[in-house]
Amino acid sequence: MRFGYFDDARREYVITEPRTPLPWINYLGSDSFFTLLSNTAGGYSFYRDARLRRLTRYRYNNCPLDSEGFHIYIKDGESVWNPGWQPTQTALDAYTCRHGLGYTVLEGAKDGVAARQEFFVPKGDDCLLMRLTLRNESAAAKALQVFPYVEFCLWDALDDSSNFQRNYSTGEVEVVGPAIYHKTEYRERRDHYAVFWANRPADGFDTERERFIGVYGSPAMPEAVKNGACTGSVAHGWQPVAAEQFDLVLAPGESTSLILGLGYIENPAAEKWAAPGVVNKARAEAMMARYADDRQFDAALDALSAFWDALLGRYQVRSGDEKLDRMVNIWNQYQCMVTFNMSRSASYFESGMGRGMGFRDSCQDLLGFVHMIPERARERILDIAATQFPDGSAYHQYQPLTKKGNADIGSGFNDDPLWLIAGVDAYLRETGDWGILEETVDFNNDPALAQSLLEHLRRSFRFTETHLGPHGLPLIGRADWNDCLNLNCFSEHPGESFQISGPSEGPVAESVFIGGMFVKYGRAWAGILRHVGREDEAAAAEIAHHLRPGSDVHPPHFREHLPTDHHGLLEQLH
Amino acid sequence: MRFGYFDDARREYVITEPRTPLPWINYLGSDSFFTLLSNTAGGYSFYRDARLRRLTRYRYNNCPLDSEGFHIYIKDGESVWNPGWQPTQTALDAYTCRHGLGYTVLEGAKDGVAARQEFFVPKGDDCLLMRLTLRNESAAAKALQVFPYVEFCLWDALDDSSNFQRNYSTGEVEVVGPAIYHKTEYRERRDHYAVFWANRPADGFDTERERFIGVYGSPAMPEAVKNGACTGSVAHGWQPVAAEQFDLVLAPGESTSLILGLGYIENPAAEKWAAPGVVNKARAEAMMARYADDRQFDAALDALSAFWDALLGRYQVRSGDEKLDRMVNIWNQYQCMVTFNMSRSASYFESGMGRGMGFRDSCQDLLGFVHMIPERARERILDIAATQFPDGSAYHQYQPLTKKGNADIGSGFNDDPLWLIAGVDAYLRETGDWGILEETVDFNNDPALAQSLLEHLRRSFRFTETHLGPHGLPLIGRADWNDCLNLNCFSEHPGESFQISGPSEGPVAESVFIGGMFVKYGRAWAGILRHVGREDEAAAAEIAHHLRPGSDVHPPHFREHLPTDHHGLLEQLH
Repeated sequence: MRFGYFDDARREYVITEPRTPLPWINYLGSDSFFTLLSNTAGGYSFYRDARLRRLTRYRYNNCPLDSEGFHIYIKDGESVWNPGWQPTQTALDAYTCRHGLGYTVLEGAKDGVAARQEFFVPKGDDCLLMRLTLRNESAAAKALQVFPYVEFCLWDALDDSSNFQRNYSTGEVEVVGPAIYHKTEYRERRDHYAVFWANRPADGFDTERERFIGVYGSPAMPEAVKNGACTGSVAHGWQPVAAEQFDLVLAPGESTSLILGLGYIENPAAEKWAAPGVVNKARAEAMMARYADDRQFDAALDALSAFWDALLGRYQVRSGDEKLDRMVNIWNQYQCMVTFNMSRSASYFESGMGRGMGFRDSCQDLLGFVHMIPERARERILDIAATQFPDGSAYHQYQPLTKKGNADIGSGFNDDPLWLIAGVDAYLRETGDWGILEETVDFNNDPALAQSLLEHLRRSFRFTETHLGPHGLPLIGRADWNDCLNLNCFSEHPGESFQISGPSEGPVAESVFIGGMFVKYGRAWAGILRHVGREDEAAAAEIAHHLRPGSDVHPPHFREHLPTDHHGLLEQLH
Repeated sequence: MRFGYFDDARREYVITEPRTPLPWINYLGSDSFFTLLSNTAGGYSFYRDARLRRLTRYRYNNCPLDSEGFHIYIKDGESVWNPGWQPTQTALDAYTCRHGLGYTVLEGAKDGVAARQEFFVPKGDDCLLMRLTLRNESAAAKALQVFPYVEFCLWDALDDSSNFQRNYSTGEVEVVGPAIYHKTEYRERRDHYAVFWANRPADGFDTERERFIGVYGSPAMPEAVKNGACTGSVAHGWQPVAAEQFDLVLAPGESTSLILGLGYIENPAAEKWAAPGVVNKARAEAMMARYADDRQFDAALDALSAFWDALLGRYQVRSGDEKLDRMVNIWNQYQCMVTFNMSRSASYFESGMGRGMGFRDSCQDLLGFVHMIPERARERILDIAATQFPDGSAYHQYQPLTKKGNADIGSGFNDDPLWLIAGVDAYLRETGDWGILEETVDFNNDPALAQSLLEHLRRSFRFTETHLGPHGLPLIGRADWNDCLNLNCFSEHPGESFQISGPSEGPVAESVFIGGMFVKYGRAWAGILRHVGREDEAAAAEIAHHLRPGSDVHPPHFREHLPTDHHGLLEQLH
């Protein structure tokens, strides 16, 4: 392999060359705090929602790319380098990146100094933990300076990247020892702040980007690093950052560690202030105390490892095929968990600002993780179903922070309703938790419209049943599974999207794909009805749409309009 | 002066140090094609609308800042530098930037090579012209390579900077000799394209950013420049750019020039194609032919100079105070014209994506430029008035490309209606063009609702008259002139804007400022009515609101609720 290899024993992917074709990232976090982290320590952190609660800035489509992240500069005389190569791009004597299950380890070495930078989000706390371990492998004492650096985002990533005339005037921080608190808008209307901290006293800090990097400077070589001295700047507006300076001397063979953290804290309204204008830091201080030394750090990493052991231990195969085992036992399940956490709302191509979580996506994704986390799959089902409309259609997307449907994109994707049946059916078959069908769930996020989940499924089925085109096949609406197949929308004007433009819910265009779904998930729906004792309704559903098991009769006109080369698919569905 | 000085004879501001405290920019263009250009050749171009029709990318709040623009790399052996210092930041032997009236000239010199880069937008064509003049001032022949570079924006600047999963798949270009055509979405739904061209054959080109800059490369040192060879890449998706390579040899004392252009072309629907899939380039070719040599370039620059002579010649003072004359005769008027052109919709702090043009701003700005361009002030008035609602209120902002009110920000800024009277009154007093009052103008951009401009002013006046609070003072709505004074909006939730949140049009909060406006522009309204022979209505307006000239009676309760220290202001208004 040119860029890396799988280490199955450690369940890691090991990257041996920092110049991968594009940044290769890991997703850290499994509850509410998440970090996208590249193989060169680029990336960003957010709390629950990559758009609405972004902790650090990331510039998509930047040039140079992947310049923002969780970088540590090491100054060794005139030489400045990073353990992960970026952003100085100083050539390293050795480089390895290990993307593991919920953690990443970067190892870089230069001129007799070995640096190891570990990253993970601990279970039970909303923070990213980082530990730098430095070892002097040379024969002489080394005087080193270490500068960790992050750039804060002013919470709403879209606003942060567009509303400069406002945002350049709002940034606020507090500095208390080696803890830098980012508290923009906390005074006005927020109950949350971020904190970047270290577990030992700093020899300097900066919180104004301009002072640390330089007005015309670059993350590739911050002025403060070049000068070997932070300036002690305290940001008021402009671009608040957290940069710290640690001056170290290592004897030959000596090692030392530095634990760093980036945390997110919410305070109840009544507990916002320690004194007028001074943030109540009690929760942050308690968090910092939980990761103050290597023993605590290692214990938290062990707990994360145990969490993944348990998750992946629920389903393991030994096929005799190394590659099959690797994918089934480690990476597919890991990917499914990442998909559960993010639902595709943030990646290095999806900026996290544009979409939230998809109705269709989230229903489908359930099939991949329901066996690992059935209780969270249950919660997800109820969240998704609450964005359904009373007629069975649904918001195509919803925001993870608010769990509200996204009105910008709206509804009209006619495959969406049937995916809810697909997801619930998978959940029921895995868990046997039939009680979920009796849960009361909002329609359109409105408690006044709430009905049982069973009724939601009924509306899903009926939506398709009552939205058929001239050949008796389901109307496609804005799209079936393929968003690009919007047969009703012919956008002609610049800027129109294929998803949201034009008369997108026409009376004619039909979807063979939704027809297939209707056969498959209509049968699932009939099975659910039988199980809960609604034999008559189940039979009616089957008869009305010729779904009786074993029947070779398809929905009206189904076969005659299907392209000949799809008949095999149809048989498979039956 | 540390960074520069005024050159009054040439009507230029001369910058002598590239590291200004922040980029110092000029605004090029006076009709429909505009370029923001910094003193180091950073910036971007757009056609009419900085959001909807952006030609080149610019990354606001980037680090390093101001990295995108219209840079030319000069490779002289192993040395690579730019005439304007950025983005290589290679130290220059000499540097000057001259920001003039509609043009900018950068001069840089290094190792015996003098480079002069001129920029302007010619009258009558939608393009930015650039000319590089190189002179070998050394005693030996010089083999030089020259690489101009721009990065295309995929038209909608907001979408371009957020919707990557789509935009990375859509970029398209054509390359014909030294002309690079950017035609993304032209096939689907656009009737316009951009072209970057040179007036001599190129020795190489690139249109994929990744190939020119390098995957992990930086504009500070593009890989193709370092290697001394473009790669001939043709972009399909990802990031389309225009980079060209010119290999030159200059004898001692020899000079040469290279004319470059960035143009915007629209084709009628029936004339889009020269052949299937091949853009009809006739209009671009005609444009390029108009600036193919130095004589044509100089003539266009002279025409621009004559245009500014005429504009500024309409009003000149000789006060004996150099600084007063300088500001009145040159820079204030220049600034007013820039404000006419952009209406504050794009700067280095306003990204051009967020607001369009302001109703209030544009009405106010009229006062500054009406004497220079009365015929365009007339057009602006009619455009603005068409975004007024039938009740006299107005969209607070509108998009310059569509001239439609911006529904995102909406209405409710209660000073807006009176500003229309202010602008029209200034226009009438300057021009005597009373016929404008009879122009038929839409309400809410709806021709079915059109009325005379006089009727628009009447609705403006009546809006204030009928929106009074408990003290008889005008209701403030969302704001008076001070947008931050939104007395009805107490946003408590993260992300809420002071402009658009909450119950922002309450029944109680009043504005002394709008009261003052009502006195001043109510009198102007009465004067207009008298002039058009509506004596009774004028008298009624004056009586109803005690606006009769010379009267010391103010609108009901006005004085008693005014803070004492504002009484002087009140007298001034009278």
